[in-house]
Amino acid sequence: MKVALAQINTTVGALKANTAKMLDLIAQAREAGAELLMFPELAITGYPPMDLLDRESFVEANLACLDELRKASHGLTVVVGFVDRNLTSKGKRLFNAAAVLQNGKMTSVHHKTLLPTYDVFDEDRYFEPADLVTPVNLLGHHAGISICEDIWNDSDFWSRRLYLSDPIENLSRQGMDLLLNISASPFHTGKPQLRLAMVQAACRKYRLPAIYVNQVGGNDGLVFDGHSFIVDAQGHLLWIGQGFEEEFAILELDDLKTLTGFQWASDMAMIEKALVLGTRDYLHKTGFKSAVLGLSGGIDSAITAAIAAQALGPENVLGVAMPSQYSSEGSVTDAEALAKNLGVNYREIPIRPMFDSFREALAPAFEGKAEDVTEENLQARIRGNLLMALSNKFGHLLLTTGNKSEMAVGYCTLYGDMCGGLAVIADLPKTWVYDLARYMNRNGEVIPENTITKPPSAELRPDQTDQDSLPPYEVLDGILRAYIEESKSNAEIAELGYDREVVNWVIRKINFNEYKRRQAPPGLKVTRKAFGQGRRYPIARGYDG
Amino acid sequence: MKVALAQINTTVGALKANTAKMLDLIAQAREAGAELLMFPELAITGYPPMDLLDRESFVEANLACLDELRKASHGLTVVVGFVDRNLTSKGKRLFNAAAVLQNGKMTSVHHKTLLPTYDVFDEDRYFEPADLVTPVNLLGHHAGISICEDIWNDSDFWSRRLYLSDPIENLSRQGMDLLLNISASPFHTGKPQLRLAMVQAACRKYRLPAIYVNQVGGNDGLVFDGHSFIVDAQGHLLWIGQGFEEEFAILELDDLKTLTGFQWASDMAMIEKALVLGTRDYLHKTGFKSAVLGLSGGIDSAITAAIAAQALGPENVLGVAMPSQYSSEGSVTDAEALAKNLGVNYREIPIRPMFDSFREALAPAFEGKAEDVTEENLQARIRGNLLMALSNKFGHLLLTTGNKSEMAVGYCTLYGDMCGGLAVIADLPKTWVYDLARYMNRNGEVIPENTITKPPSAELRPDQTDQDSLPPYEVLDGILRAYIEESKSNAEIAELGYDREVVNWVIRKINFNEYKRRQAPPGLKVTRKAFGQGRRYPIARGYDG
Repeated sequence: MKVALAQINTTVGALKANTAKMLDLIAQAREAGAELLMFPELAITGYPPMDLLDRESFVEANLACLDELRKASHGLTVVVGFVDRNLTSKGKRLFNAAAVLQNGKMTSVHHKTLLPTYDVFDEDRYFEPADLVTPVNLLGHHAGISICEDIWNDSDFWSRRLYLSDPIENLSRQGMDLLLNISASPFHTGKPQLRLAMVQAACRKYRLPAIYVNQVGGNDGLVFDGHSFIVDAQGHLLWIGQGFEEEFAILELDDLKTLTGFQWASDMAMIEKALVLGTRDYLHKTGFKSAVLGLSGGIDSAITAAIAAQALGPENVLGVAMPSQYSSEGSVTDAEALAKNLGVNYREIPIRPMFDSFREALAPAFEGKAEDVTEENLQARIRGNLLMALSNKFGHLLLTTGNKSEMAVGYCTLYGDMCGGLAVIADLPKTWVYDLARYMNRNGEVIPENTITKPPSAELRPDQTDQDSLPPYEVLDGILRAYIEESKSNAEIAELGYDREVVNWVIRKINFNEYKRRQAPPGLKVTRKAFGQGRRYPIARGYDG
Repeated sequence: MKVALAQINTTVGALKANTAKMLDLIAQAREAGAELLMFPELAITGYPPMDLLDRESFVEANLACLDELRKASHGLTVVVGFVDRNLTSKGKRLFNAAAVLQNGKMTSVHHKTLLPTYDVFDEDRYFEPADLVTPVNLLGHHAGISICEDIWNDSDFWSRRLYLSDPIENLSRQGMDLLLNISASPFHTGKPQLRLAMVQAACRKYRLPAIYVNQVGGNDGLVFDGHSFIVDAQGHLLWIGQGFEEEFAILELDDLKTLTGFQWASDMAMIEKALVLGTRDYLHKTGFKSAVLGLSGGIDSAITAAIAAQALGPENVLGVAMPSQYSSEGSVTDAEALAKNLGVNYREIPIRPMFDSFREALAPAFEGKAEDVTEENLQARIRGNLLMALSNKFGHLLLTTGNKSEMAVGYCTLYGDMCGGLAVIADLPKTWVYDLARYMNRNGEVIPENTITKPPSAELRPDQTDQDSLPPYEVLDGILRAYIEESKSNAEIAELGYDREVVNWVIRKINFNEYKRRQAPPGLKVTRKAFGQGRRYPIARGYDG
């Protein structure tokens, strides 16, 4: 059987463009003699369509697109994800569905059984689960058609199962001999490996081959990594698609042999690709061509600029150094060196005149009050205003440069350095920022060495360094990981060997700063638990555990 | 039977404080001879606890609080909402539960069947639904104990049912003769009336009385209105609690007679109370005593200041006028008049010096470029920076003054007038802002008459008025309501009599400005569909319908 796997980059809501892309690939697949062509989950709408699903006109337009695809399906079999209506009088109005289109006919429709409703996922908000699943005869196979999460509830693979039923087990009982899965499964480190291992285990367990097609591309804060694959009935990997790129593969199943020597890229390599793809897609899908960002001479803005230069081309990036009286000499020279290394545009705007005029205007109100964090925030907000002015005047998107460690404990200024349309490295702990910098310098200096080696500083008062206010980053990041990603309690984290006072301080800081994060721009998710849509905490609350 | 209804204002996550409050009321109820005492849904944790539920230590601490309540329950029966563990190996780890505590024993536990997962609700994210419901013998009754949404799926009341099952019908089949419901049901206009009418219909249908206890108070953007009530088996209202206030009522059921002459407060009266309560609770529950806000002389900031003065006391409110060269004379005199009417603190800080210094600093970058919206935004952001400086220096929370109409179409400056910790009137369409102003002036001028009658203007360039950029507010608000609250399509809205071009323009603006709203502070919800947690739209997307 000749199969075509279309690992495509759709735009959420761009029904016509997504459909046009698929019509083109249907023609190509037919031309190449493919018998089966698979598109990702909800390929017509893009994933996640979110509350666009509440719009009846949107659902209807998606069905019209499905009909276009149906008409184009002569001469081959197409499996494609779409939004189906629930025509009964009870339950949610929609199903997350896969259609089988064959020779101009829709021969079957399959509903998703397991609806992820955790972390960044909200599928119970929109969809009713399938009330039954059954294999279909497809090109001589008894194929089980599943959608993403349907493969994520195996009783042998998971110690605890999130759902009461297992549609794969159910399909297997009904004689399934080929497992198809169409997915929109977003990236975090370790997830591509987990996904493959899980399907390999299912193939061995049920003694059947599987074809898995995933979406690729960035949609707001989520980056879909692709990595579509084919596994045989012994669980051997036969083929795997690129990570973080579109892929259109036409393969003769019977000719495929066990893939030897396949190696996953390193975590840092995947993170770099995820951030580049996420940044490029966020800008291009929102209609931007170019970006502006502040360059402090520090490592966060350096990494962000390097990602932007890869994503958009260096000629489409403007770095702005905005020194104050508290800036070290290195801050400007390091920023300049970075801009030169990257080939991005560069400009300097000292902020002292604005800072002086604010202080003068506020002097009557502040009479008798000592300087404090207020004056630090003033500077950060002057910089934010300057960058937004450049963004407004020239149509550049402002990129925010904050990392996950500072977003966690609020070591950042709301409406200051938090300004921006996209927070490129907001899910990277500071220790990972260093790892990524070293990875980026693997073939020669991209991030200036001095930027990597000097002590990090906000430079908002004389001789300030981050470690005046924060625990060492190794300690901070260890606590953050245990608290945010692993939901451990204060006591459990202290048991890992961290000082109890430090643990309590960090957790209080995380909780207190929820209000800042609620107003942060979307950040690109690369860990299991990112701030943003996937982590929903109350602002007003009386719990600090 | 003597029953006590505890319509309490809990703080999310404040397990100990919430429990202490309940222990006190248990003692009072016993003292007064009450046989049954009812607390709201999830009264121990407060509602909504959100992802605090992911923390095992939080769930455990909530169970320890339940045990405190159990021990204190001698001499009466207590029904209280808590988070129960799901001890099976499948499904979500928790149940949304009600405990019956009698004479120091927990005699039964009831799980919620219908888990709202739409709008602001995410209960499927955390909870497994009940697998069975059954009435319990309680003080001579066969009582059905239900939790909030459990009463919201009646086949006769709703034309379309959101859930497949109906636990009330199920309890009735099993001989229930008294319906108890503990709720945490947030306010929007019309909801208190709907809730009562729905329970009255259920009482008539099943020929049984009902006791309904609701939470009261603000938690982030949600305001719970209370309005607990008792209805008899003929559907007559016997008693109803205050709206927007705590209520602790001890009532002899047999003595209650049909309440005659009960009238709901008007929409504007409820909205005023909701905003005052929501503002006060947001500040006090986040540890603030005082607020600062910009006073433009316009109606939005006037209303916001009036709400803040009621919520916090006028002595705890600081209004700041920040005129520019484009400000009308009226802007300062109207702001002053308002401050005087309200008795709030007042200060003026002209922004021209800062504006000039920004323009000078940006002149090299902007060479050859015409003035545009950039210069307008600069002014708004200078004001935001000044207000945040006052907030930082004095510990006042900054209140944002934007209304729903401008938040919808983005007629506001991100990091400028959108700065703030709470957006008090963010869910009030501009036409409602005028209605509320007139309502507030019912007993004499609070909002200066000139503020109500002059044409609204952002005053960011010479002779600007809102209607240079926007359709008339009656038209804009009509389109917004149809699009946002009723999810109508462009074509359907045009059919209501609006110009198709204007409809398309408004909808494009709404969609384009999603990025601004994503960074907006929480707003107090008063309509069926507010921006924020209850309306989740992608930023990057290709759909403008």
